Amino acid sequence: MSAPLRVGLAGLGTVGGGVVRLLAEHADLIAERAGRSIVLAAASARDKARKRDLPLDGARWVDDAVSLAAASDVDVVVEVIGGAEGVAKTLTEAAIVAGKPLVTANKAMLALHGTALARLAEAKGVPIACEAAVAGGIPIVKALREGLAANRISRVFGILNGTCNYILTQMQTSGRGFADVLSEAQALGYAEADPSFDVDGIDAAHKLAVLAGIAFNRPMDFSAVHIEGIRAVEAVDIEYARDLGYRIKLLAIARRTATGIEQRVHPCMVAADSAIAHVDGVFNAVVAEGDFVDRTMYVGRGAGAGPTASAVVADLIDVARGRVPPLFGVGIARLADIPASPMRRHVGPYYVRLNVLDRPGVIADVAAILRDENISIESMLQRARALSGEAVPVVLVTHETEEAAMQRALSAIAGLPASIAAPCMIRIEQL
Amino acid sequence: MSAPLRVGLAGLGTVGGGVVRLLAEHADLIAERAGRSIVLAAASARDKARKRDLPLDGARWVDDAVSLAAASDVDVVVEVIGGAEGVAKTLTEAAIVAGKPLVTANKAMLALHGTALARLAEAKGVPIACEAAVAGGIPIVKALREGLAANRISRVFGILNGTCNYILTQMQTSGRGFADVLSEAQALGYAEADPSFDVDGIDAAHKLAVLAGIAFNRPMDFSAVHIEGIRAVEAVDIEYARDLGYRIKLLAIARRTATGIEQRVHPCMVAADSAIAHVDGVFNAVVAEGDFVDRTMYVGRGAGAGPTASAVVADLIDVARGRVPPLFGVGIARLADIPASPMRRHVGPYYVRLNVLDRPGVIADVAAILRDENISIESMLQRARALSGEAVPVVLVTHETEEAAMQRALSAIAGLPASIAAPCMIRIEQL
Repeated sequence: MSAPLRVGLAGLGTVGGGVVRLLAEHADLIAERAGRSIVLAAASARDKARKRDLPLDGARWVDDAVSLAAASDVDVVVEVIGGAEGVAKTLTEAAIVAGKPLVTANKAMLALHGTALARLAEAKGVPIACEAAVAGGIPIVKALREGLAANRISRVFGILNGTCNYILTQMQTSGRGFADVLSEAQALGYAEADPSFDVDGIDAAHKLAVLAGIAFNRPMDFSAVHIEGIRAVEAVDIEYARDLGYRIKLLAIARRTATGIEQRVHPCMVAADSAIAHVDGVFNAVVAEGDFVDRTMYVGRGAGAGPTASAVVADLIDVARGRVPPLFGVGIARLADIPASPMRRHVGPYYVRLNVLDRPGVIADVAAILRDENISIESMLQRARALSGEAVPVVLVTHETEEAAMQRALSAIAGLPASIAAPCMIRIEQL
Repeated sequence: MSAPLRVGLAGLGTVGGGVVRLLAEHADLIAERAGRSIVLAAASARDKARKRDLPLDGARWVDDAVSLAAASDVDVVVEVIGGAEGVAKTLTEAAIVAGKPLVTANKAMLALHGTALARLAEAKGVPIACEAAVAGGIPIVKALREGLAANRISRVFGILNGTCNYILTQMQTSGRGFADVLSEAQALGYAEADPSFDVDGIDAAHKLAVLAGIAFNRPMDFSAVHIEGIRAVEAVDIEYARDLGYRIKLLAIARRTATGIEQRVHPCMVAADSAIAHVDGVFNAVVAEGDFVDRTMYVGRGAGAGPTASAVVADLIDVARGRVPPLFGVGIARLADIPASPMRRHVGPYYVRLNVLDRPGVIADVAAILRDENISIESMLQRARALSGEAVPVVLVTHETEEAAMQRALSAIAGLPASIAAPCMIRIEQL
């Protein structure tokens, strides 16, 4: 066997702790599969004094994480600090410049700086491995970049945020509202005290930008991602979705369209009998569609110490074997110059729940607005007549419609005298 | 870019034709991702005269496939002839001996000779890539061997035969019987004229033997696979499964137990709300469970020209990049000496449908037999009373039971005077 691969680990939070444990518990198995030992040589974290209960004996403590890049006893740097800027980025750049392979779980950094980092890495001939940055333990980066490498990818989408999926699953099974379920999720540790990063869709959008870059061989383009979170999803919509044969999921979707690459994160209705509709709780799932392979799906835990460490150490094994492909799967010079397609050009079916008073002529007004925008209605559901002058739940499902037309129609409907609130709209994703 | 990788292709059936088309249609994309061109240099098939409508210009025709191994214009051999013995095996061995990387879709050959071939390949320092041998377009070999490489795998199981899954799905949605649906599947081309290889579970068992070898780093052990097909599944069982909250799937399962590695292919009931229960039609799915990553699932098309070619060409790209791991992910010397656990030691819950006449005391007799075998009943369903002396459908679900005890109980029940046929038993797989 060759000399051990010596790891410098930056970050000892949930993920870093998982990596330390995994390297210690499976040292033999890892050595067999890597063809050499992988050992923790040095570790760094913000607070040295914090009690951690980790098998850190034998690892040198380093106060300044960035110094791992230059350390002579470190062959590969693992960055699990997080954050798009700051120490994580400084360390990453320093490691690459020092010629050290980098393993990172940092989706925010890759979403914002992935292309520049890949360019630097290519210039230095250094691999960047990032399996843990998207969908935790699911080996989706490997699947897209290697397993499906012979395909032209047309769409990649998935459930990329476990917190949102947990909340939506709970809302669905219990019939409770968003705020209620969020509080419970926070109490159980499934949601952060400040949940906005997750429930507003930012985290999923970071991951989507990375996936889309790899899938379409196109520079990562976070600023082009249309982002909506799940705060506006109401219990009543989950009920209607069920009646219509759908489930509501927060999906992150990147798609090749006639006008370019579309990237969007928003609540979606998906067919209730599809496999992805049954990916529940904190599980993540990614669907990748290629022209030869057709549809493939990958499911697993998207977060947590074990699954994320599994991905980080798989990357370390690839580094040890010398088999990490370029970050995008192709060289930087070969990245494609495909434009981003703006959200207003999105085309698909829509679910719309009207918030209108039950007055004569209201539905006719709504129908006229839709007709004027060339929006064609596939079905309309009205549960029961309300008392005259009260709000009545009316739900529409449209045929394929362009987003711009839908947004104009929604504004016009909201402006009707009978409207007591803006309509609730949820896009339907066709599988 | 380096020199092109020159492919010698043996077999121009469905899979071989797909490979030819894929290499031609995506030549540029493949070159970018492989870091060099991959070109079809030579091809061979049984019948040169057959009309194929494939872009074979530029490829040299070879009458004797085995000669591809020694051909000076071939860098890598693709074997998509099939069959455990004969030309496929002779060519494979010759290619390895000649120092040429081999890409194969041949599950039968690997299931029976995989360990010997891996030993030969290791001695010659030649890679064997076999992504297309299991689950068609799903990159499951890569996921198990690389993506989950940091895990100790506890169980790997899945839907590995699209024909069986199509038949069971049709039986479920239409309520029709096996024979009826099989005829239709044959007419549609989803089942062979002689369907036994698929419906009797042999094909799934070959794939399972390969998956289990890779997952558990243990010599492939096809003879240890317990195999039952789907001929005995009746429409009434599919109905009862639904009532009990299950779906029936033909699963191939390999599991690490206290007594060794268990490998089995048989109809299974799985929870109706699980994602794998919704993998329908000709789709395949594999679930892999590791100690750090927890449960992961992979879904896609398990057969067909496009998906299988996608897997073959992904392997070729790995060969071009020089990143194919050893067949088992570890060296031959490191394969584990874990015994095979015999089927009689299997433990799990069982579904049993009795075929007994509705006579006083029959249920008591059955209950006594189960009690004597220490089999505990979780639930019992009796739909309606039959007329006295007629058969009555009685269904039992047991708690965890050992297979040996269950088999003894089933024999004893079949021997009761009131039994008009042996009970129907379907194992329940817990997720």
